[in-house]
Amino acid sequence: MARVGIVMGSDSDLPVMKEAAEVLEEFAVDFEITVISAHRTPVAAEEYARTAEERGLEVIIAGAGKAAHLAGVLAAYTPLPLIGVPIKTSTLGGADSLYSMVQMPGGVPVATVALNGAKNAGLLAIQILGTADKKLRDKFKEYKNRMAEKVTETAAALEKLGYQKYLEERG
Amino acid sequence: MARVGIVMGSDSDLPVMKEAAEVLEEFAVDFEITVISAHRTPVAAEEYARTAEERGLEVIIAGAGKAAHLAGVLAAYTPLPLIGVPIKTSTLGGADSLYSMVQMPGGVPVATVALNGAKNAGLLAIQILGTADKKLRDKFKEYKNRMAEKVTETAAALEKLGYQKYLEERG
Amino acid sequence: MARVGIVMGSDSDLPVMKEAAEVLEEFAVDFEITVISAHRTPVAAEEYARTAEERGLEVIIAGAGKAAHLAGVLAAYTPLPLIGVPIKTSTLGGADSLYSMVQMPGGVPVATVALNGAKNAGLLAIQILGTADKKLRDKFKEYKNRMAEKVTETAAALEKLGYQKYLEERG
Amino acid sequence: MARVGIVMGSDSDLPVMKEAAEVLEEFAVDFEITVISAHRTPVAAEEYARTAEERGLEVIIAGAGKAAHLAGVLAAYTPLPLIGVPIKTSTLGGADSLYSMVQMPGGVPVATVALNGAKNAGLLAIQILGTADKKLRDKFKEYKNRMAEKVTETAAALEKLGYQKYLEERG
Amino acid sequence: MARVGIVMGSDSDLPVMKEAAEVLEEFAVDFEITVISAHRTPVAAEEYARTAEERGLEVIIAGAGKAAHLAGVLAAYTPLPLIGVPIKTSTLGGADSLYSMVQMPGGVPVATVALNGAKNAGLLAIQILGTADKKLRDKFKEYKNRMAEKVTETAAALEKLGYQKYLEERG
Amino acid sequence: MARVGIVMGSDSDLPVMKEAAEVLEEFAVDFEITVISAHRTPVAAEEYARTAEERGLEVIIAGAGKAAHLAGVLAAYTPLPLIGVPIKTSTLGGADSLYSMVQMPGGVPVATVALNGAKNAGLLAIQILGTADKKLRDKFKEYKNRMAEKVTETAAALEKLGYQKYLEERG
Amino acid sequence: MARVGIVMGSDSDLPVMKEAAEVLEEFAVDFEITVISAHRTPVAAEEYARTAEERGLEVIIAGAGKAAHLAGVLAAYTPLPLIGVPIKTSTLGGADSLYSMVQMPGGVPVATVALNGAKNAGLLAIQILGTADKKLRDKFKEYKNRMAEKVTETAAALEKLGYQKYLEERG
Amino acid sequence: MARVGIVMGSDSDLPVMKEAAEVLEEFAVDFEITVISAHRTPVAAEEYARTAEERGLEVIIAGAGKAAHLAGVLAAYTPLPLIGVPIKTSTLGGADSLYSMVQMPGGVPVATVALNGAKNAGLLAIQILGTADKKLRDKFKEYKNRMAEKVTETAAALEKLGYQKYLEERG
Repeated sequence: MARVGIVMGSDSDLPVMKEAAEVLEEFAVDFEITVISAHRTPVAAEEYARTAEERGLEVIIAGAGKAAHLAGVLAAYTPLPLIGVPIKTSTLGGADSLYSMVQMPGGVPVATVALNGAKNAGLLAIQILGTADKKLRDKFKEYKNRMAEKVTETAAALEKLGYQKYLEERG
Repeated sequence: MARVGIVMGSDSDLPVMKEAAEVLEEFAVDFEITVISAHRTPVAAEEYARTAEERGLEVIIAGAGKAAHLAGVLAAYTPLPLIGVPIKTSTLGGADSLYSMVQMPGGVPVATVALNGAKNAGLLAIQILGTADKKLRDKFKEYKNRMAEKVTETAAALEKLGYQKYLEERG
Repeated sequence: MARVGIVMGSDSDLPVMKEAAEVLEEFAVDFEITVISAHRTPVAAEEYARTAEERGLEVIIAGAGKAAHLAGVLAAYTPLPLIGVPIKTSTLGGADSLYSMVQMPGGVPVATVALNGAKNAGLLAIQILGTADKKLRDKFKEYKNRMAEKVTETAAALEKLGYQKYLEERG
Repeated sequence: MARVGIVMGSDSDLPVMKEAAEVLEEFAVDFEITVISAHRTPVAAEEYARTAEERGLEVIIAGAGKAAHLAGVLAAYTPLPLIGVPIKTSTLGGADSLYSMVQMPGGVPVATVALNGAKNAGLLAIQILGTADKKLRDKFKEYKNRMAEKVTETAAALEKLGYQKYLEERG
Repeated sequence: MARVGIVMGSDSDLPVMKEAAEVLEEFAVDFEITVISAHRTPVAAEEYARTAEERGLEVIIAGAGKAAHLAGVLAAYTPLPLIGVPIKTSTLGGADSLYSMVQMPGGVPVATVALNGAKNAGLLAIQILGTADKKLRDKFKEYKNRMAEKVTETAAALEKLGYQKYLEERG
Repeated sequence: MARVGIVMGSDSDLPVMKEAAEVLEEFAVDFEITVISAHRTPVAAEEYARTAEERGLEVIIAGAGKAAHLAGVLAAYTPLPLIGVPIKTSTLGGADSLYSMVQMPGGVPVATVALNGAKNAGLLAIQILGTADKKLRDKFKEYKNRMAEKVTETAAALEKLGYQKYLEERG
Repeated sequence: MARVGIVMGSDSDLPVMKEAAEVLEEFAVDFEITVISAHRTPVAAEEYARTAEERGLEVIIAGAGKAAHLAGVLAAYTPLPLIGVPIKTSTLGGADSLYSMVQMPGGVPVATVALNGAKNAGLLAIQILGTADKKLRDKFKEYKNRMAEKVTETAAALEKLGYQKYLEERG
Repeated sequence: MARVGIVMGSDSDLPVMKEAAEVLEEFAVDFEITVISAHRTPVAAEEYARTAEERGLEVIIAGAGKAAHLAGVLAAYTPLPLIGVPIKTSTLGGADSLYSMVQMPGGVPVATVALNGAKNAGLLAIQILGTADKKLRDKFKEYKNRMAEKVTETAAALEKLGYQKYLEERG
């Protein structure tokens, strides 16, 4: 049964939002993924959010761009934590997506991550589930360790090769 | 029967939004005015928008600030034209309210006016109703004429008094 | 006889503004389309706006970029509702076009839609005409339904294929 | 034992951050509250984050302004979910605080809420704890209901009094 | 006969725009000053700009805020150089006024000065007239010298008193 | 003898700044064009500005990007009117260049045109010289007429061809 | 003999810039402080920068607002490191001052600190002098320790009093 | 022994940051260059900064993008001057990187240069080392002279060829 729902406003957001899915797969957390438009399919949005809890979802990740209302609209109908991914579009440097998502009024939070930060949305979902799932939290610690190792290896390679060779070989 | 609905996300928006009401009163157009939060009372928002047409409303004016989703949420549920008033708050110079309102996706327009532009929202409603109501359009023309006259009188006073006296007497 | 006038500041805006024309064609609403520059052909702008009503226009859509004065200049001379389409240019993320259009002073509203939102400008014109034209409003409701269906189909396809296949096949 | 840690970069943030504390008190969730500067007391920041899990914390809320690194710095040292409250200062409309907090790189999310949104930070913590604590989730649903009722009462009062009287009596 | 015309969109701009008038008085250059709204009195705007040259004006200074079209609208109807003063209002930090004024399309320049920079608008008018009026240019050079002297005196006082005393006595 | 000086901070600005030169050639106004960096060749900048008047220059056009100090630095040393062209670079949407140029302190104006608006800088120089050169002013009026005619021809072609054909043939 | 020069564009910047002076006093580093305007007294600016090295200065701190050219202009004439303090004014949220200072072209750096960050400018000067002055560096380490202690004491007080009492007593 | 440390948050910053290395090579100043992530390898960051002084470093240059905490985090642990290079990414025009770096709180300065200004970071390091190293300062003066010469040569070529030929041959 899906523990995390990934929703996006349009299938054009999928190349960004798939990173959330990939994270959840990496952590072996069941998820569902779909397209719902807060403005074109408001009934589906309401339905999705209203039934989320009873369907067993524990966290919802919503990605949307421009006047990015999706996360807020879902949050209005569910007690589950909502993670918002503002999608960068070509206008206003992405400030429209970001402000529309993060500046929620008192009472209805949306946990907003970086522009196009779907990967971090997935990780935040893991952290949230990890508050009551020690195994998952331990996996997340390992994930953090692997990230650190990768940076350390990069640093080692850069120091070994020197910056010019490094750029030639890997740039 | 109300032809125009004025909705705002919080009663703290009323000092701004009352200007829309005053315009409608000046034009003797029936209206209703209420508070609905897209995020705290989503059911009321849906209900309001769904029944707007059958209740006889022809235009809806919605004012909201920050992550200003109200106009978009109402627009999702009604075929009526939605006029949006982004309310200026103290953060981000009001860009959050403006972007959240105006940057609607294809298919669901919100006719956005200036930050705190509730007066113009009222006038735009008059213009919209005036497309099929010659009397109202004529009234709007007179309104435009009176505005022009006021500016002309101001100019005459400034020219007569000189700018220094004008500032002393009216500044 | 044209009910909607589409005006743009330069023919370089046409690739964007044609979406308004396509919407009006889809709804079988007569329209006219032309190029008028508020700054290079101010006389034509004045003439256009002054005669719009008597020529039978009911709504005007104006698209312009940068210091986008066109909609405001037309609005000064006509009682008809003015819909503004801020054209995104390469500078300032489009904020120049948007602010120049939406921040109109009290008395002279411009119903502003999203950056490059010509499609929504067309739909807003339909909504406005629909306030007194039940057939058009019904057509708009059908349009909304079709939009919802398309999103629903997208969602079904995504759920059926899974996100990876979906991306491969349609991405 | 505290389940939520509230940390802020300076005691000048306390008038904002206390709203998070008040929410947690309202929900009877144990919390601790302190001042740690990512830049002036980096050792304390590291120590706090490193020991957070073993001290029983489940969620951390961090508020900071300007170059608001606190949440990110804590997130670097702990697997717990980090909620960030960008504090609005007088410069750049608060964009500095917001961008510094929300634009975290892949791997280390900060769940960012609105500028000065400490109340929502508290509620988000409740939602996160509620994913595994049915009682808390039920309390949150009641909270949502009470919020809705308050808006409904406001709407009723506005409709009963009319907007002018409402403004006189409550404005 | 007036050589410079000072125009503003509203008498609320006068406290700013009077600084242009004061500069012209200081340089003993005849000017006229009036209020014209590009949007509320477009006919007056056209009339003003069209007759400016034959009435003997050589430069026009226009101040306006928000969607600040006034300078551009005047520029459309006259070959005279147009100096624009974007008036700072409370929204968007003044970026709306500035962008609306400065981002003019090719063919119709507006010589834009700083937000609320009416004093510099006056001085720029002097510089422009000074291109063919040696006396005026010489006066401007003296003005520059006096400015430099004032700064030099300030520096001397600061150095003499020390910064603490200086702040006490003049701060 | 050159009446207008065109200066730019780097030869990378030349593809933009040449439009100012082309305008001056079109109006048969003598000009000189060179590269001076306010920061790398401050002595040349001072020298250029100091001697501008005695060398017969009447107007200076300066183009620069990012921290665009060039126009301001030249303005400090000369009584001649300074026209500033903020060059759009890839950062901050060009706001850095624009703000650095237009926000000059009281006493030292820079007549700023649009981002990359070198063509308008040339035309503004013509307008300024035209204040005392009736022939040049008449030429500028003809230029304005030709611009209007071009727009009118475009409009005629669009109306004749219809927007679809127009796009195919000229788009 | 002064080792650090503090320069500001106007005596209105002194209430901000004095914090740099106070830091230098606290570290017993000799400094001089004066007012020089890049635009009104360019000769003084050049003179100041040109002679800075031979007069024994080692670092220069320059504060200025809006089109904040002062630091860049001084940097053009001296090999000494230039620290820039962008002064927040009422326009554009301070972005004008910041961008004008920090976005220097290649070859002429300005070490920019935060808006109104004069205190940090003083500390940065200490750090720079400390690269070759072990005593000063040790003092700076003590300063850092004292800062940390103050935060620790604040934290202790907050924990002891509880946040409500703390706000009452110290808020 | 390295006198300057160049650190970047990711090897994707290397194409920008190498310009700092190239400057240091040109001035024959020993440096080290590595990758450290403030968020993924916080322990390495702390370690690096803590040991920087004893390892003989005199200045640290740190480049990072988006929520660019690296420079601030290093500054927290070392008394050495920290030069920050905000890396331009594709979001928000780079304002996120810039604000996150420059807006440091009182007590912990970061000497910020322009977006992607790694070259200037290198030169600023030279200037800082030059405060106590007369030879290096003299080299820097020669560098400044060469820069000026290059601009002068460019100007000479442009004047000799004319702008059109110059563009053809070198554009």
